[in-house]
Amino acid sequence: MITVQEHLSRIVETVQRLPPIDLDLLDAQGCVLAQDVTSEVALPGFRNSAMDGYAVHASDLLTASLTAPLTLPVVHDIPAGSTQALSLARGQSMRIMTGAPMPEGADAIVPVESTDGGLSTVTVSASVSVGQHVREAGEDVAPGDLIMGNGTRLEPRQIALLAAVGTGEVRVTPKPRVVVISTGDELIEPGTRPGFGQVVDSNGLMLVAAVRALDCVPFRVGCVRDEAQTFRATIQEQLLRADAVITTGGVSMGAYDTVKEVLSRVGTMRFDKVAMQPGMPQGFGVLGEDEIPVFTLPGNPVSAMVSFEVFVAPALRLMAGRSQDETAMVTAVAVDDWTAPAGKVQFARVVLSQAGSGHTVAIAGLQGSHALGSLAGANALAVIPADVTSVRAGDQVRCRPLGPILEAS
Amino acid sequence: MITVQEHLSRIVETVQRLPPIDLDLLDAQGCVLAQDVTSEVALPGFRNSAMDGYAVHASDLLTASLTAPLTLPVVHDIPAGSTQALSLARGQSMRIMTGAPMPEGADAIVPVESTDGGLSTVTVSASVSVGQHVREAGEDVAPGDLIMGNGTRLEPRQIALLAAVGTGEVRVTPKPRVVVISTGDELIEPGTRPGFGQVVDSNGLMLVAAVRALDCVPFRVGCVRDEAQTFRATIQEQLLRADAVITTGGVSMGAYDTVKEVLSRVGTMRFDKVAMQPGMPQGFGVLGEDEIPVFTLPGNPVSAMVSFEVFVAPALRLMAGRSQDETAMVTAVAVDDWTAPAGKVQFARVVLSQAGSGHTVAIAGLQGSHALGSLAGANALAVIPADVTSVRAGDQVRCRPLGPILEAS
Repeated sequence: MITVQEHLSRIVETVQRLPPIDLDLLDAQGCVLAQDVTSEVALPGFRNSAMDGYAVHASDLLTASLTAPLTLPVVHDIPAGSTQALSLARGQSMRIMTGAPMPEGADAIVPVESTDGGLSTVTVSASVSVGQHVREAGEDVAPGDLIMGNGTRLEPRQIALLAAVGTGEVRVTPKPRVVVISTGDELIEPGTRPGFGQVVDSNGLMLVAAVRALDCVPFRVGCVRDEAQTFRATIQEQLLRADAVITTGGVSMGAYDTVKEVLSRVGTMRFDKVAMQPGMPQGFGVLGEDEIPVFTLPGNPVSAMVSFEVFVAPALRLMAGRSQDETAMVTAVAVDDWTAPAGKVQFARVVLSQAGSGHTVAIAGLQGSHALGSLAGANALAVIPADVTSVRAGDQVRCRPLGPILEAS
Repeated sequence: MITVQEHLSRIVETVQRLPPIDLDLLDAQGCVLAQDVTSEVALPGFRNSAMDGYAVHASDLLTASLTAPLTLPVVHDIPAGSTQALSLARGQSMRIMTGAPMPEGADAIVPVESTDGGLSTVTVSASVSVGQHVREAGEDVAPGDLIMGNGTRLEPRQIALLAAVGTGEVRVTPKPRVVVISTGDELIEPGTRPGFGQVVDSNGLMLVAAVRALDCVPFRVGCVRDEAQTFRATIQEQLLRADAVITTGGVSMGAYDTVKEVLSRVGTMRFDKVAMQPGMPQGFGVLGEDEIPVFTLPGNPVSAMVSFEVFVAPALRLMAGRSQDETAMVTAVAVDDWTAPAGKVQFARVVLSQAGSGHTVAIAGLQGSHALGSLAGANALAVIPADVTSVRAGDQVRCRPLGPILEAS
């Protein structure tokens, strides 16, 4: 028996950030930059107006006020998108739109709200200070500025900035492609009503959805029978398109545990009992020339989900160039009593709620490793250390959120 | 001038949850159920073994112990997936795998770890209690149970439960399809280095990415010139495939503000100044027979992003059947001084960090509504009420997270 931490450490020391690829900017959403990005341009790219109004020499309007307005000729109209090089003489003005280039010589903008909005002449009822409502070229980003570091995750605002400096393609760490294989003679395809002795392959769908929710790219292989030759052929074929493989089922103590039977003969795979409940039988290793990481999870649905959260998700995040953990643990006060196994870390399915400035945690129904109903009703895993055998109402419990925390009712 | 709350209220009172559609279960990930789901089956579907081991009559092993083991004949082998109806006589055992159906008459499982693992006979070194390691049919979900309510968001664990009870298609609220139209003669397509007077359409990419990050479905139309006829034709064509339309640019006080010029003639649209900084010029209304909500956002990138967060995102969530807000506000202690405009809510771009059990907030560089660099560096908006004109280090500030909160360094 090994500890959760031992198994996790072996996994995170084995997996590696994927080699970089070049993607169109919009296709790179959610990926992590695999290079530093330095801007070659200035932002703003040219001196421009921050308001709709009139470009002026501030010194021409020193005495302008509501009671003593001043009038200037309007010699030109500058829309946004103008690429004309213009020059403003003293005593004159040009009508200008937000974002349009400032004419040479102008040093301030009078907002249209402080004028009569005139077209051939404009009457101004307020003085302006030099630089007012003017955006200087490069005041946001200067050419040569490091605007984003290797490892930055590309979200909408990062994509906007990269686009603004003229980026078309970016070099990023790709999203891991993850093959999901369910094994078991009892399995039937989703969308079918199970008969006696049959179980729907809910694990396959759950893991595909979990891979996608993690912003990785899943491929579902479907149900593979408990037959060594078929399983061996399937996994070999799938290694070609996978950055990682997840299997469920076939890793326990049974006579038909095909995954373990086939893969335990491969020197690069290892099968262990991990001191946790649920999720004790775990296998991990690498397969093939490319040393693709393979996670063999138990077949019970709750065990599979807990194993995914505890072992697979951290590995996939690291492969994607992200942090191993992205969700902070939450400490909550138990409102129920429950027991935990001696010598094993318990991952109990719980309901975590906001209560004032703190949180409460309640047990989420039947705790068997087959209990999908209570798994679906839970929004967190309570992590009970191996040396704790009972939780009492009032105890502090560390929880790993699986979804949004409920508001106190 | 209207308040932020007035504009938001008008929006959320106008938009409606989209009509339901039927989707394949896996395609419905992230959608919200548009019906209650009652299980027609039991989970487990049949009485089965929770362990690899031997099905027995517990009464046959009352005296079994490590020092005085008992031996039973093994009369059958039951793999998972077996659909054979079997019956176990007293004094006999059957080898059974996890998940395999219990034979009629058997009332307990001896785990293989408590036996010699024999194939024709098995020697058992521990007694068992009735029901031990047996999963009763329906103990997780009984036929007729309401397993998931209308409005439940379908995440991996919910998809697993729906699959397990035999669901193929689900009736859900679809993800809103959102058309993004950027307007402005100064705009050039992303991937191009901007020349004098030109600006890359970073807004289009940012909003498409923001729609996608919200788990809605974006369509980017690209840059439309400041020309009334073109804009009118574009928006009319796009209404056909849209559940909502977002435009940027052309809503200010300028002479070439085409969006406002075209849409302010439509009685169902309304243009307002909203008491906020940035993001003052806002338009909202419905267009076409289907009364498609149209959001006309300002063209400055920071204004566009803030407007999306404050007005568009809540509306899209409601249309998707979700909660108006999904991210809790965070109260943080300011570590900087900054000023805020009188009479307007300020949405300042800030860096929010965890600090012990609390949070700190620092201003994120240049605050102009064109400052994409500091927007990309921010991870939250500080929301400064209209009657506050300055923030001082030590003040409590309410923040709306835009991304992961930083760990204290």
